[in-house]
Amino acid sequence: MKTFERDLIRRLGASAAAPRPDGGIVLGIGDDAALFAPRRGYETILTCDWFLEGTHFLLEKHPPDAVGWKCLARAVSDIAAMGGEPRFFLLSLALLETHTGRWLDAFLTGLRRAAQKFRCPLAGGDTTRQRGISINVTVAGEVRTGRAVLRSGARPGDILYVSGRLGEAEWGLRELRGKSRRDKNAAALKKHLCPEPRLVLGRWLSGSRMAAAMMDLSDGLSTDLPRLCAASGVGTRIEAAEIPTVEVGSRRGVKNLDPLDLALNLALDGGDDYELLFAVRPDKARRMPQVFHGIPLTAIGVITRERSLTLVRRDGGEEPLRARGWDPFRK
Amino acid sequence: MKTFERDLIRRLGASAAAPRPDGGIVLGIGDDAALFAPRRGYETILTCDWFLEGTHFLLEKHPPDAVGWKCLARAVSDIAAMGGEPRFFLLSLALLETHTGRWLDAFLTGLRRAAQKFRCPLAGGDTTRQRGISINVTVAGEVRTGRAVLRSGARPGDILYVSGRLGEAEWGLRELRGKSRRDKNAAALKKHLCPEPRLVLGRWLSGSRMAAAMMDLSDGLSTDLPRLCAASGVGTRIEAAEIPTVEVGSRRGVKNLDPLDLALNLALDGGDDYELLFAVRPDKARRMPQVFHGIPLTAIGVITRERSLTLVRRDGGEEPLRARGWDPFRK
Repeated sequence: MKTFERDLIRRLGASAAAPRPDGGIVLGIGDDAALFAPRRGYETILTCDWFLEGTHFLLEKHPPDAVGWKCLARAVSDIAAMGGEPRFFLLSLALLETHTGRWLDAFLTGLRRAAQKFRCPLAGGDTTRQRGISINVTVAGEVRTGRAVLRSGARPGDILYVSGRLGEAEWGLRELRGKSRRDKNAAALKKHLCPEPRLVLGRWLSGSRMAAAMMDLSDGLSTDLPRLCAASGVGTRIEAAEIPTVEVGSRRGVKNLDPLDLALNLALDGGDDYELLFAVRPDKARRMPQVFHGIPLTAIGVITRERSLTLVRRDGGEEPLRARGWDPFRK
Repeated sequence: MKTFERDLIRRLGASAAAPRPDGGIVLGIGDDAALFAPRRGYETILTCDWFLEGTHFLLEKHPPDAVGWKCLARAVSDIAAMGGEPRFFLLSLALLETHTGRWLDAFLTGLRRAAQKFRCPLAGGDTTRQRGISINVTVAGEVRTGRAVLRSGARPGDILYVSGRLGEAEWGLRELRGKSRRDKNAAALKKHLCPEPRLVLGRWLSGSRMAAAMMDLSDGLSTDLPRLCAASGVGTRIEAAEIPTVEVGSRRGVKNLDPLDLALNLALDGGDDYELLFAVRPDKARRMPQVFHGIPLTAIGVITRERSLTLVRRDGGEEPLRARGWDPFRK
């Protein structure tokens, strides 16, 4: 093991996985690869996510502990979106030599906190040096065989739900960038910096068979919802008035937009919310709670047979839903 | 799914994994994560590896199809080193927009070829854009429960073996960089550009219980051997005269070194060989073939109780083995 890797592991301390005789991680850090004993009756979920300086975070704006938290939270959110539970993660870290001291310490503090919170210990990885900071996180999780909730399960007539409030993380990012100093919103800033993957909700929606299709919102509703519809071979009709939005204050906002319009734009096109988007059969929707463990669950529209994507405006008019969310290769 | 991702998947074509009803990959590309049904009686192996422009490859020197092959081969080699077999991989690709055309086509051709060769289809990943080219590959593999060969299994008296010839890839890199034009060595160049992980050998060493400890040589014998010894809590004594080296020609080589010394330096300190280093109990060593499926297997020394690492020179003198292999944070 390289000196730097050994040092990193020492610093990660309690968040590194110890081999467990009861299954789970058989072998953690220090060999050629991690060894994992899958539980009988479960399928393994695997996902990996970039977190790149300059693309996903800004060195001069994002505190390193938030970078540590968020790189794991993003990947864990994909596990939540399948209805699974995370088991462990691999960390690939490419660092500037100038950032192996204090920056790395704070990064690891945030990462360790996230690993403890999500019960997802470190089990291996790869470290190297580079001209910038690049992070890639692989998370392995588990779900009972046959219970994973896919994007492809939506049917015409299903009710479409979202958890939480949309656009909050994007509003938080604008606060961080200093573009919206007038109306401070600590919750939005926290949501941008330290998102909480909806693990408990995802597991409940899967375990209770309430959700027929599900995904997490990482690139904005207007970009992610078409993906769910495409996977299911359906369309949708959502109501602007029903979408739970962020509180942007009462004064006229960015680009002189009406606050309601600004909030709607943030909800449709803002990324990084890590809320769950899910479709529920109409008979089950009657039993859907309005709040689950403190998280609001809101019906925002229906799944349609016609494959078009329609947004019903507050004034009752209709328009096609246009994907304006985050896509690194579009802008 | 993002436009670019969809396009990427289309281009990867046959190397993407189709869901299989017989277990294996239940769900490949296109959902929040990959779903994998582990086989009963097997443990899951997980490994991830960086392949970064400027650190691991040079845009102006390395052909893109070799970059595609090698990024997967490196990670698959970790599976070989545990005695396992690869099942599928996740690709994290961060690209310059200027390289989404011809460069990407050739990259994917090499990657597809490697995926077919190693029977390791693509099952998901993450794509984004960046100022440089960054690649991270996660490979999931399997090994029969309890049969993974770890670094920690070596005992005093074990015989230490290596597969193939060491230093060949480093020699190939020098050829590529134009530092050794005089004596062309196509095999060395091929080994640097398109290494072949020792999958069949690794599985045999694990399945036959011949190897008590094993790892792959990625950073050079002088750097990797101390890792195996540290994990096993032992020392070693290796013979310079026994180490299988690369043919560097008869003329005096780089820095006016004697060809034999140059070859030994390459073997000790050259990286990227992806050969296997393994320890065998003395009674089993008697049954070790000299060649396995065309790959030479060579005893280079013994494992000792004393924790020191000793190199016996050709003249019979002894010196400590010094780690001079590849370590991104040392130079």
